[in-house]
Amino acid sequence: MSIITLLTDFGIVDEYVGVMKGVILSINSSATIIDITHHINPQDLIQAAYLIESAYKYFPEGTVHVVVVDPGVGSDRAIFAMRSGGHLFLAPDNGVLTLLIEKGEIEAVVRIENPNYFLNNVSRTFHGRDVFAPVSAHLSLGAEMKHFGTLLDSKNLVRLSIQKPFISKQGELFGTVVSVDHFGNLITNIDSNSLGSLLTATSEKNVVIRIGKDKIRGISSSYNSVSAGDSLAIVGSRGYLEIAVNGGSAKGRYKAQKGDSIRISLGD
Amino acid sequence: MSIITLLTDFGIVDEYVGVMKGVILSINSSATIIDITHHINPQDLIQAAYLIESAYKYFPEGTVHVVVVDPGVGSDRAIFAMRSGGHLFLAPDNGVLTLLIEKGEIEAVVRIENPNYFLNNVSRTFHGRDVFAPVSAHLSLGAEMKHFGTLLDSKNLVRLSIQKPFISKQGELFGTVVSVDHFGNLITNIDSNSLGSLLTATSEKNVVIRIGKDKIRGISSSYNSVSAGDSLAIVGSRGYLEIAVNGGSAKGRYKAQKGDSIRISLGD
Amino acid sequence: MSIITLLTDFGIVDEYVGVMKGVILSINSSATIIDITHHINPQDLIQAAYLIESAYKYFPEGTVHVVVVDPGVGSDRAIFAMRSGGHLFLAPDNGVLTLLIEKGEIEAVVRIENPNYFLNNVSRTFHGRDVFAPVSAHLSLGAEMKHFGTLLDSKNLVRLSIQKPFISKQGELFGTVVSVDHFGNLITNIDSNSLGSLLTATSEKNVVIRIGKDKIRGISSSYNSVSAGDSLAIVGSRGYLEIAVNGGSAKGRYKAQKGDSIRISLGD
Repeated sequence: MSIITLLTDFGIVDEYVGVMKGVILSINSSATIIDITHHINPQDLIQAAYLIESAYKYFPEGTVHVVVVDPGVGSDRAIFAMRSGGHLFLAPDNGVLTLLIEKGEIEAVVRIENPNYFLNNVSRTFHGRDVFAPVSAHLSLGAEMKHFGTLLDSKNLVRLSIQKPFISKQGELFGTVVSVDHFGNLITNIDSNSLGSLLTATSEKNVVIRIGKDKIRGISSSYNSVSAGDSLAIVGSRGYLEIAVNGGSAKGRYKAQKGDSIRISLGD
Repeated sequence: MSIITLLTDFGIVDEYVGVMKGVILSINSSATIIDITHHINPQDLIQAAYLIESAYKYFPEGTVHVVVVDPGVGSDRAIFAMRSGGHLFLAPDNGVLTLLIEKGEIEAVVRIENPNYFLNNVSRTFHGRDVFAPVSAHLSLGAEMKHFGTLLDSKNLVRLSIQKPFISKQGELFGTVVSVDHFGNLITNIDSNSLGSLLTATSEKNVVIRIGKDKIRGISSSYNSVSAGDSLAIVGSRGYLEIAVNGGSAKGRYKAQKGDSIRISLGD
Repeated sequence: MSIITLLTDFGIVDEYVGVMKGVILSINSSATIIDITHHINPQDLIQAAYLIESAYKYFPEGTVHVVVVDPGVGSDRAIFAMRSGGHLFLAPDNGVLTLLIEKGEIEAVVRIENPNYFLNNVSRTFHGRDVFAPVSAHLSLGAEMKHFGTLLDSKNLVRLSIQKPFISKQGELFGTVVSVDHFGNLITNIDSNSLGSLLTATSEKNVVIRIGKDKIRGISSSYNSVSAGDSLAIVGSRGYLEIAVNGGSAKGRYKAQKGDSIRISLGD
């Protein structure tokens, strides 16, 4: 078994993703290739950072995760492979793996430099095909990381500055909407830990969640715990607080978008 | 060989489908996972009911078909597995398999209850990942249905009330548009049997199909049997009457949508 | 190993692609099926012709490439299989393989006629399911081409008239935009050879590329070789000249679409 996942901003209208799979299968014909998504907003590193962190852990150890959101393709930005938590990751050194790097479970990092593992005639426009795909295939076959290039210290990897939730002096928890999913759920950067630190003093029913001028009372445990059409706040499947509408779209109701503020306070 | 098909309303922008595949492969690394579609309109059980009925029979016997259109996730709605016609189906008990249940070829039904087959820490928001995916993987490995929970009588399964075509006292056949496909073809609920019962008295050329104020004469046998740009009625690949435009879009021409009426009469 | 690629205009909202995969797996349960794209504009043969030519060569020899862009389904247009460059292609005889046929590396062509390789009860609306899928599965299992029908002379295959770039009497190179990709890059029909014949007399820096009333100077070697937000011309990953915007969308900037002219001249 060797599994390779792909997470890109290539879309699926062009042949780009199919071509990457052709290159992989030319090297490892028994690879199982799984699409995480190809619909990252063009060059949106933060969205990609959240998605790969949410998704990778549901795959078996040994999976090779390829993340190609790469506005710097053709420049001198590095490409690196990283072993962490028993998984392998391959990405440009532009911060797209920031949330994984911050976990601090990194076992090894190597800069991808050895052209023996690339396609011949590497273009300066499509490293997904010419570098990421063949390198991932060789990694999935068990090639040792040290053969691909220089070992790196993970401290030197580029990291994005990703906004974290915080508690104000007045004891309110501030977060932001970081993505809006297919159902119109507004997914925030407020994880269970942040929420827990606020909630030690009270119960989940006694909080007020504010988005714009609107208020939601309490944190629900399922979409159905409010009436159809009503809004709710819930810790969603990624482990982050979401604003949702039972049977509807919070995106539509709140005209909300990425970057909007969420404020949570105790009592009223 | 073990094949698992997925039919959901999850879309492909988020990581949800990829994560389900990761869970499946963690349990059955040799599963072949095929997407039927992830573009069911959010929570549209009837659309899903037609699609799974159209699609499943083209897969080999033994295939596990997973249908996750599940507005009741996190409520007390049941999840069940059903063996029918040599195939296995896994779905929430909300009527999404109504058209299969009505066929009456059910071999066994079991309520999915045994948490040994679930992920640890089942969420109340994403049973696709926490229940459907792992259960489908175990089914694909040949685990016996009885191990998953209580055997059910199929008479107790929830069924949707799906509108059927009917012949009026005046001898006209009434149906409705149930979906509009990628090419803009209007797919009705009028199957060959219904059509046959009308047509015993006449030939296919002598019928008039009415949609809104428009008329189409005769039932064609291929899209090309009318001139480019002309409308036609045809029994499509799902086995239901469709309104199409040769080289164009019937959706565009008739401004039609799901639920619109179709009326078929003999002669003029 | 047997790989089958699919390139269609079916979209992924309906069950059509999933059903084709079910048919393939029913015949060859170990086939690896890869989507090139299902988002060809409905019945756009030229777009499909460019994509299959760009994509196939990245797959291993022996791959079966299935192209179903087939406005003539149900008419008397032929379906043929072609071996070329060690790959197998299966397509309707409507010109969709024109760019491959023009390469002149054809090893064998056969008209698909033998119903033993079709599904029972071939419809006149969905040959993707009833003919292309089962035939591709049998080809992937190694069935010899001659068993499928009459051998054909490739000279008799339908070819599209695909516009080629040309050099005017004044020494200017004229091309057209043939597609716009997911990133908004405008992909032209000007390949490296055409460009090379113009550039023998000068360097890449000394050319002017005109699109509408706008000018771009020089041909870049990477998207990053101009400032963020600036336009550039570059030979892209398909081997054709593209107009792009570093970090943006040339489609948006130039309001350009397929068929627009591109003019390249030396000096100013």
